[in-house]
Amino acid sequence: MGIRIGIVGYGNLGRGVENLLRSNTDMTLSAIFTRRNPESIKPHDEKVKVISLNDIESFKDQIDVLILCGGSASDLPEQTPSAARWFNVVDSFDTHAKINDHLTSVNASALASGHVAIISVGWDPGMFSLTRLYSEAIIPVGETYTFWGKGISQGHSDAIRRIEGVLDARQYTIPVEEMVEKTRNGEQIPTDSTKRHIRECYVVAREGADMGRIEKEIVTMPNYFDGYRTIVHFITQAELQKSHSAMPHGGFVIRSGYTGSESSNRQSIEYALKLDSNPEFTAGVLVAFARAAYHLNQEGKSGCLTPFDVPPAYLLPMKREDIIRKFL
Amino acid sequence: MGIRIGIVGYGNLGRGVENLLRSNTDMTLSAIFTRRNPESIKPHDEKVKVISLNDIESFKDQIDVLILCGGSASDLPEQTPSAARWFNVVDSFDTHAKINDHLTSVNASALASGHVAIISVGWDPGMFSLTRLYSEAIIPVGETYTFWGKGISQGHSDAIRRIEGVLDARQYTIPVEEMVEKTRNGEQIPTDSTKRHIRECYVVAREGADMGRIEKEIVTMPNYFDGYRTIVHFITQAELQKSHSAMPHGGFVIRSGYTGSESSNRQSIEYALKLDSNPEFTAGVLVAFARAAYHLNQEGKSGCLTPFDVPPAYLLPMKREDIIRKFL
Repeated sequence: MGIRIGIVGYGNLGRGVENLLRSNTDMTLSAIFTRRNPESIKPHDEKVKVISLNDIESFKDQIDVLILCGGSASDLPEQTPSAARWFNVVDSFDTHAKINDHLTSVNASALASGHVAIISVGWDPGMFSLTRLYSEAIIPVGETYTFWGKGISQGHSDAIRRIEGVLDARQYTIPVEEMVEKTRNGEQIPTDSTKRHIRECYVVAREGADMGRIEKEIVTMPNYFDGYRTIVHFITQAELQKSHSAMPHGGFVIRSGYTGSESSNRQSIEYALKLDSNPEFTAGVLVAFARAAYHLNQEGKSGCLTPFDVPPAYLLPMKREDIIRKFL
Repeated sequence: MGIRIGIVGYGNLGRGVENLLRSNTDMTLSAIFTRRNPESIKPHDEKVKVISLNDIESFKDQIDVLILCGGSASDLPEQTPSAARWFNVVDSFDTHAKINDHLTSVNASALASGHVAIISVGWDPGMFSLTRLYSEAIIPVGETYTFWGKGISQGHSDAIRRIEGVLDARQYTIPVEEMVEKTRNGEQIPTDSTKRHIRECYVVAREGADMGRIEKEIVTMPNYFDGYRTIVHFITQAELQKSHSAMPHGGFVIRSGYTGSESSNRQSIEYALKLDSNPEFTAGVLVAFARAAYHLNQEGKSGCLTPFDVPPAYLLPMKREDIIRKFL
């Protein structure tokens, strides 16, 4: 039956993990844990148990790795350290500024229980972070720029939805084409991401709401929109559903540096993602690192790791000699 | 003084490593080892010793990691296992078909002496291999294609130079644009690399040589040109020096796959390199993995590793919390 996986949270990310486990034959989905009424969830495979999150501790001997599919704002800061008391865990914690705090609290819990936790597994943080690290290690002199989009930012969409008079909203993050071109040509550009991205918002307002006020509240919102070029469109709920219900995303990391005795040779690396489904891609990264968490724990490791601490070979369900033959 | 580095071989790659060590302040270049007359080599920093390769064993307590900068055809199969008896080593062994044999022989030597060896460190094998591995681990259903070029292939240039009547030659490997576009659009293309690359040759023939015969010998050469679309230009030595003496290279790895319950969401990853200097880029990868070899050995590891076995954080001269803050 392979590695026994549990999923916590059955939103877009949780369903993405469930789907991916069907392409990963060394793993089995054992149970889905939810804060909702378990009866309300119908997993793809009827044999998979759906359990109240309150009862999770009693499954500690039936799950090898728990994949936490909640949000970074309120779910993961509490769930990951709590779950690491009983399970190997992976999460996609993505509040960059709070990663060190999260790591400290998860590490204490995982070390005490002898489990492996791997946090901040996704694409940013995650694959983009790995690209930034590798690129700077191998080209020490240069600049690295990360561009996000075009894609829907869930956090910014949520922030718009909290404004009085807004019924629904989607926010696209879009790289400024001129900045992208400059970066590809090796020119220096502002490191401030507000100068490198446009924020385009599709907003459904309540009938009679003051659109002028809503627009002003959006474009001046500190930390989210203030400082960015922000474009606001008011549309109907029907239009939003029809044209903006998919979850595409993507972006790229570019490192541009110089080598040689005169620093005259330009060397550049570009890592680009084009994703039809942001949560399904993140799910793929989580599943691969869940495999690594299991094998590292089997070898006696414990504590909180990040993608930077995992030897890449641990991500694949193959023998070392086959990995070398196929990929090296 | 940091990690004490030795360089074996003072060609383009060795000089690239020498230059890079000046941007890596945690390392010091202690000595350059050569098969040539040491007097004939003038290192950039006059204080660096230049030593005959025959005397290398006597430096075993003065060097922490040896970076082997020879060729895969005849140097490394002998030098890497030999040097691993006395040193931690890294090399850029790139004969894909013989990597497992090389690993076996280096591993025996490194295990016996208690050193760490990391082989096949460069861009392919190396960074492209890492991209192929990570990409397939996180998108299990899909296809991965590697394109090389546009750039000069040293092995193919050498093969042309061995033909009777040829004085000098450069061979550019060029991806077929139509195949690149198809791959980016998610279409399947031939896995056979002969259908995906063009080989363009600039040849200096001896006066009076039979150009028709030379061209025929090139385009029909098995393993090198046979099966490829091959274009041959005859030019003068002066033209070759003027227009074809740089060492650019590059290429890209594209993975295109599908996720979701209907496999209807396309997910794609593209990793692209554009290098003004192929050997200087490879040098950067070698230096980063040399750092990892040193720290892994300090922790008690020994034996032969590949880039797949190295946790990325080991590549940087920074504390873990700083790496997390800056890159995650």
